[in-house]
Amino acid sequence: MSAYEDLAQRFRRTGAIGGAMAVLEWDRSAMMPEGGSDARTEQVATLSVIQHELMTDPRLAELLNEAERASGVLDTWRRANLREMRRVWRHANALPADLVEARSRAAAACEMVWRRARANDDFKSFIPSFTEVLRLTREVAAAKAEAFGLAPYDALVQEYEPGASAASFDVIFDDLAAFLPGFLAEALEHQAARPAAIVPQGPFPVAAQRELGLKFMTALGFDFHHGRLDVSLHPFTGGVPQDVRITTRYREDDFTGALMGVLHETGHALYEMGLPAEWSGQPVGEARGMVMHESQSLLVEMQVCRGLSFIRYAAPHLRAAFGGEGPAWTEDNLARLYKRVRPGLIRVDADEVCYPAHVILRYRLERALLAGDLGIADLPGTWRDGMKELLGVTVPTDRDGCLQDIHWPSGSFGYFPTYTLGALTAAQLFAAARTQDAAIVPGIEQGDFSHLLRWLRANVHSLGCEMATDDLVRRATGAPLGTAAFKKHLRERYLGKS
Amino acid sequence: MSAYEDLAQRFRRTGAIGGAMAVLEWDRSAMMPEGGSDARTEQVATLSVIQHELMTDPRLAELLNEAERASGVLDTWRRANLREMRRVWRHANALPADLVEARSRAAAACEMVWRRARANDDFKSFIPSFTEVLRLTREVAAAKAEAFGLAPYDALVQEYEPGASAASFDVIFDDLAAFLPGFLAEALEHQAARPAAIVPQGPFPVAAQRELGLKFMTALGFDFHHGRLDVSLHPFTGGVPQDVRITTRYREDDFTGALMGVLHETGHALYEMGLPAEWSGQPVGEARGMVMHESQSLLVEMQVCRGLSFIRYAAPHLRAAFGGEGPAWTEDNLARLYKRVRPGLIRVDADEVCYPAHVILRYRLERALLAGDLGIADLPGTWRDGMKELLGVTVPTDRDGCLQDIHWPSGSFGYFPTYTLGALTAAQLFAAARTQDAAIVPGIEQGDFSHLLRWLRANVHSLGCEMATDDLVRRATGAPLGTAAFKKHLRERYLGKS
Repeated sequence: MSAYEDLAQRFRRTGAIGGAMAVLEWDRSAMMPEGGSDARTEQVATLSVIQHELMTDPRLAELLNEAERASGVLDTWRRANLREMRRVWRHANALPADLVEARSRAAAACEMVWRRARANDDFKSFIPSFTEVLRLTREVAAAKAEAFGLAPYDALVQEYEPGASAASFDVIFDDLAAFLPGFLAEALEHQAARPAAIVPQGPFPVAAQRELGLKFMTALGFDFHHGRLDVSLHPFTGGVPQDVRITTRYREDDFTGALMGVLHETGHALYEMGLPAEWSGQPVGEARGMVMHESQSLLVEMQVCRGLSFIRYAAPHLRAAFGGEGPAWTEDNLARLYKRVRPGLIRVDADEVCYPAHVILRYRLERALLAGDLGIADLPGTWRDGMKELLGVTVPTDRDGCLQDIHWPSGSFGYFPTYTLGALTAAQLFAAARTQDAAIVPGIEQGDFSHLLRWLRANVHSLGCEMATDDLVRRATGAPLGTAAFKKHLRERYLGKS
Repeated sequence: MSAYEDLAQRFRRTGAIGGAMAVLEWDRSAMMPEGGSDARTEQVATLSVIQHELMTDPRLAELLNEAERASGVLDTWRRANLREMRRVWRHANALPADLVEARSRAAAACEMVWRRARANDDFKSFIPSFTEVLRLTREVAAAKAEAFGLAPYDALVQEYEPGASAASFDVIFDDLAAFLPGFLAEALEHQAARPAAIVPQGPFPVAAQRELGLKFMTALGFDFHHGRLDVSLHPFTGGVPQDVRITTRYREDDFTGALMGVLHETGHALYEMGLPAEWSGQPVGEARGMVMHESQSLLVEMQVCRGLSFIRYAAPHLRAAFGGEGPAWTEDNLARLYKRVRPGLIRVDADEVCYPAHVILRYRLERALLAGDLGIADLPGTWRDGMKELLGVTVPTDRDGCLQDIHWPSGSFGYFPTYTLGALTAAQLFAAARTQDAAIVPGIEQGDFSHLLRWLRANVHSLGCEMATDDLVRRATGAPLGTAAFKKHLRERYLGKS
């Protein structure tokens, strides 16, 4: 057995353990009774320790060296797989085991404190445990910076988006920060000059919402032989590519939230389902990174399903599902409804015009926190100033301010930028897709998503992480990732300019 | 850290892996889309290999020796835990790894062939793969017989019921085989002299059946903070003690099957939920064996829920759930329905009078198969003769004859006897419980199962496997396991004699 083959066998094992953990985590959110929590934590922690032991086995390091020396004999995909193995290995081996454990314990403890602090709007109670998380995050960043030869923040970013950096974010965010405030004002003016969207009145039975979600999922190409739709408090996509589990949550007084949630997660799911089956269980068979993943959910939700072509297809199904009639249920009104621009406090409720401002604020603050340029005690005030400046809104409470997201309490620094880079990538990919296959848009209008799916399969899904995100975007769209397609999309949708 | 503490830590790890596997297996049966099968098989196989590696680590053997030498310092439960660790270790180490793998592969292949062979009533097609399973089962039996110093069949029995043996089964089964044919004739005569049970006519909506099941589960003491009820093709109890997952299957034209299934699995679930929490994850914290487990499901289903006191409590709920009225829904008729005696072909459909005959037949045949006294080609004929002799029924097809059970194709030899020993144990335990706490039966009639549950917790559940099955039965009932209580129960219920 060659070193490469030995490695492939070892990574297949850690891949299977990772798959088991993914199913257990899905179960925890979608099925598990509360009292099963301790047992589940023990199961997942045990598997995670075993995975870490396998990944830090000294023999693995030897095999990687051996295989890299002999990599000339490997084909492109195997070479890419070896590169990804090294990347995964580097992350696992950059940190001493006790730091990994300390970080995960501190994050778990801080998450608990955060839940209470957010509920009680009590930032002060959050400070001590968040101070500890930030201290350990800095240690992690320093260790990874040292191991990877990168700046500390950039080292953390690698956990979510390999190859990205603050420098690459800055170019994009500076551009958007200059563009968006003016654009937002224009879009609001344009909106105000037109009839206000009428919100359809419920109740909307959960069973009907679910049926509708299943119908659209099927139309989009979700394969129920390899996946499920369930309910959880926070919607997500879990499981493994052969068995993708998506979730949503229902409210009887509003169907749009659950439905758009389902469509968003369906975008994630289609990516997972389309990953190269022959590389299943190997690092190169996984999704490229969080930017590409988010691009797939936003392409489906924002680019496709909030657009007029989809609404033309969907409107009769919506009316039939809920017995809707009258002005609230026309295509025009639904289109207005699905593109309402409303600057607000909460990131997850934000429309696509305002969303980047939420991300830019967090990006600036998390860099300042990590660098020590911003003290935790000053976070709430700086947050308020930022929201005023970027979106013109006044933040009344920390609950709806700097305490709203789980990312920082759980130790995720460097994740937020991927949301907006995903949105830009979605716009650029969809623009390229429409140009390359003229059947895509007419298809959407008739509920035939096969052309769209075929393009995504060929240009994104089936590539796994054989190439870097930048190369993938360039290959699919003919240009590096930029803001032009996103801006064009915003102008078309929100100003009616083409 | 003492050798014992080191062992406890290692077994905690294998226990957590076992818990993860239990959840994954539950998911496979209750949730997983079909296309997830290969990935799931890979996940479970990987965890099972890791568990085997941990259990055959030479250091574990050293620690067991060390701890056993120093066991004088341990308290009773720790000593029992050490004994159970050794038992688990012996099973894992009795077989070479390639035999474990060959057995599991042959069983998986034979199960696939068996499904088709049963569907097509084609015993001949089943012979080659079953020959291979039997060959490997003999090898396993020989290896374990050698390791444990037992006869081959007895060595296999240890996998399901530690301490049991053919000799102990023979005493019981010879007694029952002498008693049952005469009793069955009497019971049928008694039944024929009375009004026939009227079968309530459906349809019975699944949602109403489920609600009713949940109501009775709650009344019996099933804790939904630590468990769930779902649907699967073959009902079972899975998960871990902190998070017990039971399943049933529904038919719209009959509610009794699903309901009795739920009550049966609830008995299993209450046992798991009542295991000693402080020993969770350790071998001594597990259920004692299959006899005791089956006794708990049969105590709830057969002893309690098919009895008149329960029916008095349940009848109004049944009528309310299904809008039932008229003669089919009286207590008397429901009681007749739930104790109908009907000799038939299928074990899983058998009433409690006929059930032991099904088990005795299989016990005789599996011993003969294993010993080579019965050739596989002669199995169908011998089966027909046995059914004629023991139950007086004519077997028309192998599908409803020797091909009906999954046990043999999957390599389970020595399991069947535990069903009937469980039934005897249930009768003996319930008789003792009623004697020791006079509030139990009146409680059942009022839907108050707390007295029953308290007795089971104290006398069975909370003991885990601290003591042997025999000792547990003796402690709870004042006598070793015998047939007297079971016979008395049958006479009371089916002949109306007390």
